[in-house]
Amino acid sequence: MKESLDFIYKEQKELSIIKGVAALLGWDQMTYMPPKGAQERSEQSAFISKLAHERIVSDKLWNHINVLSKSNNFDKLSDINRAVVSRLKKDVEKARKIPSDFVERFSKTTTLAYSAWEGARKKADFSIFSPLLEKIIDLEKEYCGYINLPGPRYNSLLDDYEEGMTVEKLKKEFSFLKLHLVEIFDKIKNSEIYKNQKDLDIKFNVKEQKKLCNIFIEKMLLSRDNSRLDVSTHPFTTSIGYDDVRFTTNYEHENPLFSFFSTVHEAGHALYELGMPKDEFENTVISDSPSLGLHESQSRFWENMIARSRNFWTYYYPIFKKASPKSFKNLDIDSWFRYVNQVKPSFIRVEADELTYSLHVILRFELENYLIDNEINVSEVPYFWNEKMKEMLDIAPTNDREGVLQDMHWSGGSFGYFPTYAIGTIYASQLFNKLARLDPDIYDEIEKSEFKNIITWLKENIHKHGRIMSAEEIIKNCCGEGLNAKVFVNYLKDKYYSIYEL
Amino acid sequence: MKESLDFIYKEQKELSIIKGVAALLGWDQMTYMPPKGAQERSEQSAFISKLAHERIVSDKLWNHINVLSKSNNFDKLSDINRAVVSRLKKDVEKARKIPSDFVERFSKTTTLAYSAWEGARKKADFSIFSPLLEKIIDLEKEYCGYINLPGPRYNSLLDDYEEGMTVEKLKKEFSFLKLHLVEIFDKIKNSEIYKNQKDLDIKFNVKEQKKLCNIFIEKMLLSRDNSRLDVSTHPFTTSIGYDDVRFTTNYEHENPLFSFFSTVHEAGHALYELGMPKDEFENTVISDSPSLGLHESQSRFWENMIARSRNFWTYYYPIFKKASPKSFKNLDIDSWFRYVNQVKPSFIRVEADELTYSLHVILRFELENYLIDNEINVSEVPYFWNEKMKEMLDIAPTNDREGVLQDMHWSGGSFGYFPTYAIGTIYASQLFNKLARLDPDIYDEIEKSEFKNIITWLKENIHKHGRIMSAEEIIKNCCGEGLNAKVFVNYLKDKYYSIYEL
Repeated sequence: MKESLDFIYKEQKELSIIKGVAALLGWDQMTYMPPKGAQERSEQSAFISKLAHERIVSDKLWNHINVLSKSNNFDKLSDINRAVVSRLKKDVEKARKIPSDFVERFSKTTTLAYSAWEGARKKADFSIFSPLLEKIIDLEKEYCGYINLPGPRYNSLLDDYEEGMTVEKLKKEFSFLKLHLVEIFDKIKNSEIYKNQKDLDIKFNVKEQKKLCNIFIEKMLLSRDNSRLDVSTHPFTTSIGYDDVRFTTNYEHENPLFSFFSTVHEAGHALYELGMPKDEFENTVISDSPSLGLHESQSRFWENMIARSRNFWTYYYPIFKKASPKSFKNLDIDSWFRYVNQVKPSFIRVEADELTYSLHVILRFELENYLIDNEINVSEVPYFWNEKMKEMLDIAPTNDREGVLQDMHWSGGSFGYFPTYAIGTIYASQLFNKLARLDPDIYDEIEKSEFKNIITWLKENIHKHGRIMSAEEIIKNCCGEGLNAKVFVNYLKDKYYSIYEL
Repeated sequence: MKESLDFIYKEQKELSIIKGVAALLGWDQMTYMPPKGAQERSEQSAFISKLAHERIVSDKLWNHINVLSKSNNFDKLSDINRAVVSRLKKDVEKARKIPSDFVERFSKTTTLAYSAWEGARKKADFSIFSPLLEKIIDLEKEYCGYINLPGPRYNSLLDDYEEGMTVEKLKKEFSFLKLHLVEIFDKIKNSEIYKNQKDLDIKFNVKEQKKLCNIFIEKMLLSRDNSRLDVSTHPFTTSIGYDDVRFTTNYEHENPLFSFFSTVHEAGHALYELGMPKDEFENTVISDSPSLGLHESQSRFWENMIARSRNFWTYYYPIFKKASPKSFKNLDIDSWFRYVNQVKPSFIRVEADELTYSLHVILRFELENYLIDNEINVSEVPYFWNEKMKEMLDIAPTNDREGVLQDMHWSGGSFGYFPTYAIGTIYASQLFNKLARLDPDIYDEIEKSEFKNIITWLKENIHKHGRIMSAEEIIKNCCGEGLNAKVFVNYLKDKYYSIYEL
């Protein structure tokens, strides 16, 4: 038993080393790698992934896990070891369900599909991508067969990103959410403020944008000693190690809100990564986030609940104004706050406002379910996409680039990923609601940009748990209930009815 | 035989992937890694090194190599395969001579020694470092016992960095070189120009320095598509892949010559890395440089022979002057050229001028030989260091930080490394001498900063050979003779007698 315990700890440690190496390969690819390095980089990343996969599914590891899982041995383990062994067993068991030839076929198909998607997107021609999307959907269904969770097939896909979440539960929450989002959006559309709202001409150079981002990072108590901000086309966050977390933003837009909100969003992810449980859980499978939804809750919390709030801009409006007085001429704090939260239906998910964003997600969730359940064919996706856009957002894409081809997720075979964006957004509202009721002083603190108490609360209630529980259990522990779209809807009504004077 | 050939090619390919991953871990550590990431990074790097080492010394690889090396099989191989098999056999045979417990002891001792060296250097106190240096020297001797090359023990150390080079040969060349360097230096010291030379107050900000470096990089036809320049404390060059070569510089000094010459030097290394043989030799042991000395010849060629030449400054003097007219007030091109080549004895090797630099190297070579041959004790090193400084450079360090503790090489167990700096410098002069005789037009080309012909010549005569021959064979092929310090001495006399009007 001692030998088996030693083995699984050593193996987890080495897997965590490999994970850090893989993260660095990925980070560098998105930030500094010269363009021609791409081919060799994909081989390097594939090699490291394969190395990790081989170790996870090795019979040796599986045998040691089984020694420790035998009831007479398991009962003798400490609480911590029991948690680690159970969690590890679940992960390995799942990984071992997938035949290695499937892993290879999947990887080859998604590599081809990514290129096809890029080409299709450039030409705004779905037909270039659709043959590969068909193959991917066949692979997804095959995958569901291996995982074979109870209930609808899609549950087996969802589980990879949001373990424990089910289609049944999501359909319920998402249909409620959709109904209310459309309702709120309808009201807003008929308001005078909406009818009169205009785009502003806000221009900051890169240096000014960087300065604003750095002010916020410092206020969030993120240190250069164990984290750093770089630039990439699409902002992201990754951990190279416990004390080496990297996040990125992008300064290409002249409007500083893109780089600023991206920084805030990714800083939320970075703070979570830096808060992962160490000590007894260091370098074990527990020391990770339980789901993408919970991870997204940490970024959306900061981006939406904090940085899009009126209190927040009490502190930052003067700083922005000072950085570019010309842009802020004749623009008082209330107009600016309205502008920051302006509702404006958009074809593109990543450009959507806080209110309509989740509708983009629900659209994808519905289409993914149709496809996995054979309710529609791939060739019908653009039609249904556009229909749903009209239904929810009252706009219709003029081409596939603005529509079905905008996201890369499907080309990578990431079915079941999109819902986590909305789950995270809902969780974020639940967390903020709980915190504000526990400690109404936080509004003052946000006005002063003093985040120490908020950070401590998030660390204590979310970060430190790692994967010891499921995401929903962590939320339930903290907020008294699991995923609840009502809280999010109430938050949105409060906020937007006030902004649009409804 | 087919199976064995396939195996060794696949294995070399994977080793080259692992090498690229290791290079990225190292590059990131020196450029962008947040300081607290160091502990985890050392574990990541150690893991990847171990992975490579295990594969190199595996019995499976060795057996396949031996199948292919059997004379009846070997004779049937193509020329290329014969070259690859022979080279690989040599490398693997050498690696297999070292017991794995030695590798571990060596790695642990050097890790401790590095920390001790850092502490000792900070306090300028050799006694903090000396107990570990003693251990390292014992390990070096033990290592020589495993490798066991004919002749003096030091040959087995030298071979790791400059394969095929011997102590006998180096002693001969270096004693000739030392004699003449001291003689030239003595003459210079007595010249009027030397007695009147002054430091100049040249100040460029980082932006201006960057611009100058980028102008040169472009002229050297290095493309951002497959290479990049970053910043690190100590400039270096590394290959992440054939199409991903990274080099660095440092802009901390206000005098732009540090960043500029570092960039030129590293660009020489980078050009070599980008020229490694591909096609039939891609991802084989042939596709590498045969020695550190030859690698250094490529950087010194550009730094010394090109960028410290009068012709070079015809093009760059006006550019520098334009970038900071204030610094260049009352400073004509000839004064500037003299300043760039100013001889000034220095305690610190990396700050030395072109003339005295090799004396620093010879000093270390002599001390290393004494230590490995038990002619002196570790405790006597500072004494002999200072004595030799007086003998060669006529200056004596006032403390150990300025003396024996200045370089990190010994703390890493890199005995036999230093001589490659002087070997490379000599080779560089031989290459330039050959090229200038073949094509006297190059002086005009250097005046116009047009390097196409020079680059093509280096690629054809040095880069494309990889490790198909030894460094000295490559030089012999190109220049008609092996290492020859006379050529370097003549070059120095020509240059410095003119500058100091002797």
